[in-house]
Amino acid sequence: MDEKSISRAVINRLPRYYRYLGILLQDKKERISSGELSRMMNVTASQIRQDLNHFGGFGQQGYGYNVEYLHTEIGKILGLDQTYTMIIIGAGRLGQAIAGYVRFEKLGFQVTAVFDSNPDLIGRETVHGMVIRSVDTLADYLRENHVDIAALTLPTEGALQVAPILADGKVRGIWNFAHTDLDLPESIAVQSVHLSESLMQLSYKVNHNHSAEN
Amino acid sequence: MDEKSISRAVINRLPRYYRYLGILLQDKKERISSGELSRMMNVTASQIRQDLNHFGGFGQQGYGYNVEYLHTEIGKILGLDQTYTMIIIGAGRLGQAIAGYVRFEKLGFQVTAVFDSNPDLIGRETVHGMVIRSVDTLADYLRENHVDIAALTLPTEGALQVAPILADGKVRGIWNFAHTDLDLPESIAVQSVHLSESLMQLSYKVNHNHSAEN
Repeated sequence: MDEKSISRAVINRLPRYYRYLGILLQDKKERISSGELSRMMNVTASQIRQDLNHFGGFGQQGYGYNVEYLHTEIGKILGLDQTYTMIIIGAGRLGQAIAGYVRFEKLGFQVTAVFDSNPDLIGRETVHGMVIRSVDTLADYLRENHVDIAALTLPTEGALQVAPILADGKVRGIWNFAHTDLDLPESIAVQSVHLSESLMQLSYKVNHNHSAEN
Repeated sequence: MDEKSISRAVINRLPRYYRYLGILLQDKKERISSGELSRMMNVTASQIRQDLNHFGGFGQQGYGYNVEYLHTEIGKILGLDQTYTMIIIGAGRLGQAIAGYVRFEKLGFQVTAVFDSNPDLIGRETVHGMVIRSVDTLADYLRENHVDIAALTLPTEGALQVAPILADGKVRGIWNFAHTDLDLPESIAVQSVHLSESLMQLSYKVNHNHSAEN
């Protein structure tokens, strides 16, 4: 499999394939045809063939894809054959929700610390029993601990203040839930979840009868 | 402005323009050039001109865009000139976080009810003082109340059970946070926020030095 030849559009579709292949694996399904997968995923069979042929893992016509092989290969591309340490900055409800998702831990993302700037929260425990640290200690924490990913679940101003500290602290990726873009060095990966923008997309679709996901 | 001519790709970018124009409005900026907006948004000026020329609202070369006019027009396209009633199904931390975002209310999305299936939560109040209703009363609620949008902040099985009830109840749009796709009539708009898929996109970028957002 030649990773460089895989386009960004295909990469963006891989997590959804990974999810469906995971369901098939749980169901102990060994092989699946592009036709079956097409019906499950509501994507054309030719799209599936185009996307998955990057990974091989298929035999002759009519044999179908090897579910476990494809699941493993797609997981490797997505970096899920590794584990990641993750800190959460912002111990409000969203931050604590994320800290508690067992699914993320199963995927290899281990929450190692939770920070907040609110004196009423600092020193208290999250619902998962982690002591909430002061964001003032973040730079020290990053000097002493390897952190792969920081999830930013705090308001805009806080996120903007914290971003350069994360950059200095050699965090590799930022999962940004704050209502702002971040100005960061090119070396740091950023993935944003802008909830209000997602809600606007929905209100657009509601008014224009777009039922499709994209 | 001919709405039909606006491509889906442009529509997907509109919420971000709306956000930046909102910041400019707050700063009492009346006009902005594509060059200035380009630097703010980190998008090429020619992309901005192409996107925003769908909306008019610009004078002669060198005058720039009328911020308020553009903000209003983009808001209309996104359906933000209307208000929406929203119910939340799943009163866990994520559901309660969403119920509490003042920003969504300012955009016109008003949370009118919160549901859960957990007997320990039903009848208790959310942090925002709404009594959590039993999901068993959802069908009745939908018969008696107009609901535009339902946010699904509950696990997969619950989301799959609730989806047909929402369809029967004439909900117009579903904001889906559950870890599954939903099988719904074409007439219902769906916008999904798949958090684990977002995290996988981030781990991909972390491993491949993709700092860009897309």
